[in-house]
Amino acid sequence: MDRKKAVLLLSGGLDSTTLLALATRQGYAIHALSFQYGQRHQAEVAAARKIASEYRVVQHVVTDIDLRVFGGSALTSDIDVPKNRVVDEEIPVTYVPARNTIFLSFALAWAEVLGASEIFIGVNALDYSGYPDCRPEFIAAFQEMARLATRAGVEDSKTYIRIETPLIEMSKKEIIQLGLSLGVDYSMTTSCYDPSASGDACGECDACQLRLKGFADAGSSDPGRYTTTRLT
Amino acid sequence: MDRKKAVLLLSGGLDSTTLLALATRQGYAIHALSFQYGQRHQAEVAAARKIASEYRVVQHVVTDIDLRVFGGSALTSDIDVPKNRVVDEEIPVTYVPARNTIFLSFALAWAEVLGASEIFIGVNALDYSGYPDCRPEFIAAFQEMARLATRAGVEDSKTYIRIETPLIEMSKKEIIQLGLSLGVDYSMTTSCYDPSASGDACGECDACQLRLKGFADAGSSDPGRYTTTRLT
Repeated sequence: MDRKKAVLLLSGGLDSTTLLALATRQGYAIHALSFQYGQRHQAEVAAARKIASEYRVVQHVVTDIDLRVFGGSALTSDIDVPKNRVVDEEIPVTYVPARNTIFLSFALAWAEVLGASEIFIGVNALDYSGYPDCRPEFIAAFQEMARLATRAGVEDSKTYIRIETPLIEMSKKEIIQLGLSLGVDYSMTTSCYDPSASGDACGECDACQLRLKGFADAGSSDPGRYTTTRLT
Repeated sequence: MDRKKAVLLLSGGLDSTTLLALATRQGYAIHALSFQYGQRHQAEVAAARKIASEYRVVQHVVTDIDLRVFGGSALTSDIDVPKNRVVDEEIPVTYVPARNTIFLSFALAWAEVLGASEIFIGVNALDYSGYPDCRPEFIAAFQEMARLATRAGVEDSKTYIRIETPLIEMSKKEIIQLGLSLGVDYSMTTSCYDPSASGDACGECDACQLRLKGFADAGSSDPGRYTTTRLT
């Protein structure tokens, strides 16, 4: 029997790599999708290519989209990435407006063309940076919109494309523990919003802080390379 | 008082040009957004640039997205555009999977950065080609998803970005009559799925057939250039 096809959004970070390990273990034929979107750094895409190859995905597409024309985020414009920030309820300047909506829309297009039954996205609503498009209610709304946007919605089929978010309710500690149990080599992954020219993580941005805390809570040490590892 | 900002999806076709004329008349400060998405032809984008300039929009962004990597449509791959097709209930091969979802996602990103209150899209559910993502239920679902995807959804604000579809329940005849009443010069617009090298419309694809019938029903003649104008 043919394996079920899935499109998986692969950033090259800790969460999406754990997701890839999980979906691979579940037997899906994975079509991985990554974006170059005017990030300040290309380290993520390089990591994604290496990870996709390591997991022998069926196909890995890296597509260019230009979010710089819109600006509005520290990750796509000249706004400074905040360091050693106390993570609170406010939406930080690293929020890229509608990013997950755009990523999922491309995944939806590809899933429909492939006849894939699932889209995997490694969003996480617990240890996250306060982005609106990481919450379960956003995913549920996208799911319903996606059903109506595609052929299945017109044909009123019950086999529409599902948005799968197995990490959404997990803590960073639990995600890391899951990944380690699946044999993930986290030295391949990159999470930093503001890495050095040589690709070392800063250790101070929200993403680094959440990652370092996750490894500490999991009783493990982060194999990633850091220029500093202060944990506030 | 500052004018309200709106993002408007401008394809260079008949519907979106009528939409632009309408939103301009309504007093919006228009930020027009067009896409180069691996169409077979660049005539649409050239028309969009000319129309945006004519209507003196505040800003016109043309952004590249590559839907060819996914294929699956006569408009983005080597599948032939059907000619003199009887328009029926089936979804034709010119359907580009998730296209409006992708377009609206980019518009949402820009609207959030700009602080725009509206996104205008010229979808039409009556005289259309049977695409799932032109229906009112799709737009309503996108609206709800968009509310949850953005800052307003987290802050539980009542001033979230609205998706405006003033043409959605109009016939092609009514759209043309509206445009003519607003002084639209339809010779600037292009609708054909398969224009000649010199940019002339084929007169035979679904888009040309709907357009020609619309002008005939409106008791007007289409000022567009055609290689043939057979109406089946």
